[in-house]
Amino acid sequence: VAQTITALPDAFSRYRTQLDDALRAAIGDQDHPLYDMLRYHMGWQDETGRAIDVGTGKGVRPALCLFACEAVGGSWKTALPAAVAIELIHNFSLIHDDIQDGDKERRHRPTVWYIWGHSHGMNAGVAMNVLANRVLAPNGSSSLPAEMALQVSSILTSACREMIEGQVLDLGFEQRSTVRVSDYLTMIGKKTGALLESSLHMGAVIGTDDSRFIKAMSAFGTEIGFMFQVRDDMLGIWGVQDKTGKPTGSDIHRRKKSLPIVHALETAEGSARERLLSIYRAHKPLTETDIADVISIMDELDTAGFCSSLAKEHGELGLQALSEAELGPKARAECEEMTAFLLERDY
Amino acid sequence: VAQTITALPDAFSRYRTQLDDALRAAIGDQDHPLYDMLRYHMGWQDETGRAIDVGTGKGVRPALCLFACEAVGGSWKTALPAAVAIELIHNFSLIHDDIQDGDKERRHRPTVWYIWGHSHGMNAGVAMNVLANRVLAPNGSSSLPAEMALQVSSILTSACREMIEGQVLDLGFEQRSTVRVSDYLTMIGKKTGALLESSLHMGAVIGTDDSRFIKAMSAFGTEIGFMFQVRDDMLGIWGVQDKTGKPTGSDIHRRKKSLPIVHALETAEGSARERLLSIYRAHKPLTETDIADVISIMDELDTAGFCSSLAKEHGELGLQALSEAELGPKARAECEEMTAFLLERDY
Repeated sequence: VAQTITALPDAFSRYRTQLDDALRAAIGDQDHPLYDMLRYHMGWQDETGRAIDVGTGKGVRPALCLFACEAVGGSWKTALPAAVAIELIHNFSLIHDDIQDGDKERRHRPTVWYIWGHSHGMNAGVAMNVLANRVLAPNGSSSLPAEMALQVSSILTSACREMIEGQVLDLGFEQRSTVRVSDYLTMIGKKTGALLESSLHMGAVIGTDDSRFIKAMSAFGTEIGFMFQVRDDMLGIWGVQDKTGKPTGSDIHRRKKSLPIVHALETAEGSARERLLSIYRAHKPLTETDIADVISIMDELDTAGFCSSLAKEHGELGLQALSEAELGPKARAECEEMTAFLLERDY
Repeated sequence: VAQTITALPDAFSRYRTQLDDALRAAIGDQDHPLYDMLRYHMGWQDETGRAIDVGTGKGVRPALCLFACEAVGGSWKTALPAAVAIELIHNFSLIHDDIQDGDKERRHRPTVWYIWGHSHGMNAGVAMNVLANRVLAPNGSSSLPAEMALQVSSILTSACREMIEGQVLDLGFEQRSTVRVSDYLTMIGKKTGALLESSLHMGAVIGTDDSRFIKAMSAFGTEIGFMFQVRDDMLGIWGVQDKTGKPTGSDIHRRKKSLPIVHALETAEGSARERLLSIYRAHKPLTETDIADVISIMDELDTAGFCSSLAKEHGELGLQALSEAELGPKARAECEEMTAFLLERDY
């Protein structure tokens, strides 16, 4: 764990305190069961309402937003509302994903729906979404000029719409016996990529009106979005429970059509292919042997190598896109550092 | 049915064509399973994607929004984005409510979740919410000036937040053996009232900057919100299936803590009270005899009379609040007509 913390890029930690404060302010301290669920999910309360602090996620998206604002020459604090909004949207999607995937644990704690039930979980997720809107269009006066608040809001709304479109495609994959790698990439571009792109896009828009910088940051975001999700999919199969909070092979166990299995199904031949199809088409829970077999077929196909290369390629495309704008050397170095971290992260 | 159509106030029908067009434009014709679900829910497509037109709901909220804009002297077309947004938010809540209540039918058709499952239903609901944001903060240029778009957006966001808070309270009532009438009123003020209030509030804000008119419309909205939900609760018990699409006594059947039962539980004494408590505390489905018994106890307590009076009282308070601003005689007459309709509607 010590090694991981050391490896965390400065850009992912230096805004943490102000970001946490702004997130707490956005969710508020209202004494109401809805907000108890939200504070529980954020790791600020236990399920009885007692204050705790178990830490939230990595906060990649808001950090990217604040970083982008700073990197293009803006004052990062002006991007705090956008950063908070994006983190709320991300957490809305986590709460709903946990319901849809039937996940009982997140970040080593019981999920909201598992404690309060599906209906309350649905409401908690939607509330996060609505609070994100409040942050961007606060009552009376926004900290952003009105035109810009609207522009930022429009970027986030588009991303949110794409995220839901992607989620619908992802759910649709469950019903299909074959999904091509190209279908998968379209899906993650929406499900994950749009929100990551919007993080950098919003930050850049708030920090500058130079369209070269804005375009470069947006393109960088699109590419690291692909990279991020591919890495996520790898961790869903080869990740270590200590780090990810999920057992090794968990995405196989739930028959999720993530990239490794999409790749394996697309490239396996002969008996390996037969074995994969029989496991994925069966209507019964997978055994340990099934999971071991799938992993061993992936080993033979070098599926991990394929995924790694794909992730790396998108990281490089992202850095290349960034070169279209002349970022300062420090910002450029930080982009490289963040890209490397997101490519190699083990949690 | 003929009588009902005749009785529909002109304000609830005269904006219909433009409103429908604007709603269709907001949801769009994108070829994607997400939008197929949305168009199905709106009654524009059947479940195979074929175009149909079975009509949507009464459209009370968007009509109130457009009416308010016109009544305070504005041009009602400028309020179309707000009217569309509020109808989308309302439909988001319907799609999610159907999941949470396990309702298999709405408007005489299978519900979205019943056809596509809970996960897709959740996504369809949230998508309606996100599209509402898009209407108010469209890409690039809003049809409303930026400051006003933000103000309107803020009103809608607040209402949406209150609606979810109310929904959480309502779900919480299911776990409680007694709910007081005052708790119930707090809950519906949020669950239903906030959105109805915001319809008139947004319309007025768009139509005028005279704060007397805005306050009067907002106060009128708050009161008819109470009235609307109380009437809804009455229809949930004494409504006729032909009209409401739900069997008589349906809210009793599902043990919903709606106003009639809250009133009956609060006022019944002796054996009637014992009988009610035993029915509501039992962990088995209600029989026809149970339902008939509950209705007969309500008859003795004149629960329907209590509900009627309460609804009427709020309607009168609403019209009284309106008198604070000097509306034109036509607008005033229409407010009275709408109030009477919403008080007496049988669907």
